[in-house]
Amino acid sequence: MDPYVIQMSSKGNLPSILDVHVSVGGRSSVPGKMKGRNTRWSVRPSDMANKTFNPIRAIVDNMKVKPNPNKTMISLSIGDPTVFGNLPTDPEVTQAMKDALDSGKYNGYAPSIGFLSSREEIASYYHCPEAPLEAKDVILTSGCSQAIEMCLAVLANPGQNILVPRPGFSLYRTLAESMGIEVKLYNLLPEKSWEIDLKQLESLIDEKTACLIVNNPSNPCGSVFSKRHLQKILAVAARQCVPILADEIYGDMVFSDCKYEPLATLSTDVPVLSCGGLAKRWLVPGWRMGWILIHDRRDIFGNEIRDGLAKLSQRILGPCTIVQGALKSILRRTPEEFYHNTLSFLKSSADLCYGALAAIPGLRPVRPSGAMYLMVGIEMEHFPEFENDVEFTERLVAEQSVHCLPATCFEYPNFIRVVITVPKVMMLEACSRIQEFCEQHYHCAEGSQEECDK
Amino acid sequence: MDPYVIQMSSKGNLPSILDVHVSVGGRSSVPGKMKGRNTRWSVRPSDMANKTFNPIRAIVDNMKVKPNPNKTMISLSIGDPTVFGNLPTDPEVTQAMKDALDSGKYNGYAPSIGFLSSREEIASYYHCPEAPLEAKDVILTSGCSQAIEMCLAVLANPGQNILVPRPGFSLYRTLAESMGIEVKLYNLLPEKSWEIDLKQLESLIDEKTACLIVNNPSNPCGSVFSKRHLQKILAVAARQCVPILADEIYGDMVFSDCKYEPLATLSTDVPVLSCGGLAKRWLVPGWRMGWILIHDRRDIFGNEIRDGLAKLSQRILGPCTIVQGALKSILRRTPEEFYHNTLSFLKSSADLCYGALAAIPGLRPVRPSGAMYLMVGIEMEHFPEFENDVEFTERLVAEQSVHCLPATCFEYPNFIRVVITVPKVMMLEACSRIQEFCEQHYHCAEGSQEECDK
Ligand SMILES: Cc1ncc(COP(=O)(O)O)c(C=O)c1O
Ligand SMILES: Cc1ncc(COP(=O)(O)O)c(C=O)c1O
Repeated sequence: MDPYVIQMSSKGNLPSILDVHVSVGGRSSVPGKMKGRNTRWSVRPSDMANKTFNPIRAIVDNMKVKPNPNKTMISLSIGDPTVFGNLPTDPEVTQAMKDALDSGKYNGYAPSIGFLSSREEIASYYHCPEAPLEAKDVILTSGCSQAIEMCLAVLANPGQNILVPRPGFSLYRTLAESMGIEVKLYNLLPEKSWEIDLKQLESLIDEKTACLIVNNPSNPCGSVFSKRHLQKILAVAARQCVPILADEIYGDMVFSDCKYEPLATLSTDVPVLSCGGLAKRWLVPGWRMGWILIHDRRDIFGNEIRDGLAKLSQRILGPCTIVQGALKSILRRTPEEFYHNTLSFLKSSADLCYGALAAIPGLRPVRPSGAMYLMVGIEMEHFPEFENDVEFTERLVAEQSVHCLPATCFEYPNFIRVVITVPKVMMLEACSRIQEFCEQHYHCAEGSQEECDK
Repeated sequence: MDPYVIQMSSKGNLPSILDVHVSVGGRSSVPGKMKGRNTRWSVRPSDMANKTFNPIRAIVDNMKVKPNPNKTMISLSIGDPTVFGNLPTDPEVTQAMKDALDSGKYNGYAPSIGFLSSREEIASYYHCPEAPLEAKDVILTSGCSQAIEMCLAVLANPGQNILVPRPGFSLYRTLAESMGIEVKLYNLLPEKSWEIDLKQLESLIDEKTACLIVNNPSNPCGSVFSKRHLQKILAVAARQCVPILADEIYGDMVFSDCKYEPLATLSTDVPVLSCGGLAKRWLVPGWRMGWILIHDRRDIFGNEIRDGLAKLSQRILGPCTIVQGALKSILRRTPEEFYHNTLSFLKSSADLCYGALAAIPGLRPVRPSGAMYLMVGIEMEHFPEFENDVEFTERLVAEQSVHCLPATCFEYPNFIRVVITVPKVMMLEACSRIQEFCEQHYHCAEGSQEECDK
């Protein structure tokens, strides 16, 4: 056997055209008769699988550091509010699931876009005069992740581009690139409470721009856009005729001193696909209940985009029917107090964390207004031992057993993201360890001696 | 404003290159300065959405006939065993869900491939000496549908092809075509209890063949392959070096007179991705719990395919965690009696239906051995009023209010598929209505007078 041929066909994904004419392994030597079939096992993952790339996994999995064995690990890195047990969902939410189970009515297939009755509940819950909704405007999905996936899949063809916030949630890129959609990053400005650099945003738009993703409230920033700023974003979209994918999974999760405005309530022109779900506000991310709200008062999406979404929903047939069956009670019976308690906890946690970190030389936290995150700038010039935020967080784990995500995960180097859902004592302990860490590694930047003397 | 230009940019998905140079609506007239941005709203669904096509929906939705108002509707068309209420899931299954809810341990995110403990349970449930399984060989998915989607997505690139049974479950084509993967149909032979035409199958394989889908037990046929036949299928795959996607969602659902053999237990060579789930055997299709079992004893998939599947799972983050948490109890506590009762009901329903339809001139039912379907050939030459199976089923609805699926939905014209999960009295009533219908429309075929005289 010719080793060259063997090498050929075991290397590539598909046997080359050569293999049609070359007899391998003693099989038929009549050219053409083999129809170029595979003569050796060679099973390789598709381009799509190869291109499905989660930067968080790539960065975090490569951070092969062990925590300090003398300090218990404190993880401020996972955007899952349930991990510490201090933020359980409301008993009404659990009861709603049990009732759905007991009814025996929700074991069968739902329509792939969701039960009509469940979609009606979502529609009336999110309906408002400025942005009316009916059941036909709602599609239930397997988590907000699938909502985003379906919106991108229906709006963009390979070769088109989408506008994505920097810093921003990594799933946008993961999904887009796996589908051959180009990602163009627009900047959020930390000095302006993470408002969008609208001019730079608008400069990115070209004829291949399929949609603008607006994530408000924001992961990783914890920022909440003002009505005025949202109106300016909508003006850009209207001027450029670019539809918006509004990732509003943290909708309504804003602290009492500011107001959440659903994007679609502020425009009658711009078509908006709003993605949401139970994950964050109801504190059940594992249940995988998400939705798309279609706002299209000028009939720009029209039936075609609706049909397209419905067709895409038929691929995997929607979210768990028990959760669908529970939606009505979840939306109607969860007490106001529950939402209120979650938010006041998050607000006090944010204040505590912000206050503690703002006092640490070399760190520049940005005060959040909602969601469950806080971004902290690292003045790298004061930490010359570390090359970047990834190394900073690595060493923070190794020395202090405190785990934050380097904001490189969100395409925003030299920041770290802190999750503020941890119990208060843990948060305090984490902040004091971060302080110790920073004090130990802080160096005066060259030529700024006076600053250090302060 | 030039109406021609307006027409141009509202027609296509993207403004043509022309739009870059042409000023529309009084905007900048400097060529190049507009960067070819959109000047009119034009939001069209992507090619993928357009290509996501469910033949069942297309055929059934176009069947715009009203049932006979004097007869209550009997639907034998939906592959959902829960719709009639006669086949509830076991109380242990429901209890397992409640326990998972009460534990409070399953509200957060699971790893995207599923909780380790849940994957361990699936692995040990399906483990056997001939096809060993560990947790690392299991990926939990949102229904068997997503399992199939992920397997196709990891194995095939656009432009490659997959081998799909005819008649066969329509989702294979729906998914493949949406991903630009070509479908090649291999024939099942009704006269051989729907065994595969192996020669024809093998003749379809070429260098672009990414996988062979084997659905056993079969939807729509209700057939169950013998060990010998499965071995022959494996021999083709081994000879041609084509991996197998085994759709075993009806695994273990075979009548007592025959035996179900998981495909992977019969080969140490051929890499097999087996797709399954809770939907059918545990009678909870709405819960969307599916899985992929990776059988790869010769390490042909290797880590790359495993990693590819894990990466794809990160797109929408797996199935509902409550169901994941319930898996252990579901698998361990569901009494044997429950499975037994389901199967003996299905068996007696199949016998009843087969017996009744076999006695009707013009129909040729094929006796099923498992799953929940029965295929019936229509001797179209005896029903000259109807052009095909679609018209036959349409008129059956209009006159007798009995709804079956025309097997054109499964790419197999002149057959109809009957779902046998309906309660016995309904099944009897349906059969007698089908009989009346056939008697009313039966004509002797030309040149076969003697047959009619019998
Ligand atoms: C901004 C943002 N969008 C979407 C999601 C995904 O939500 P789900 O868990 O419902 O898929 C997350 C989860 O962290 C998120 O932070
Ligand atoms: C052969 C076959 N495979 C897969 C499925 C999909 O199963 P699930 O509901 O778990 O997605 C079905 C459902 O009818 C089926 O008949």
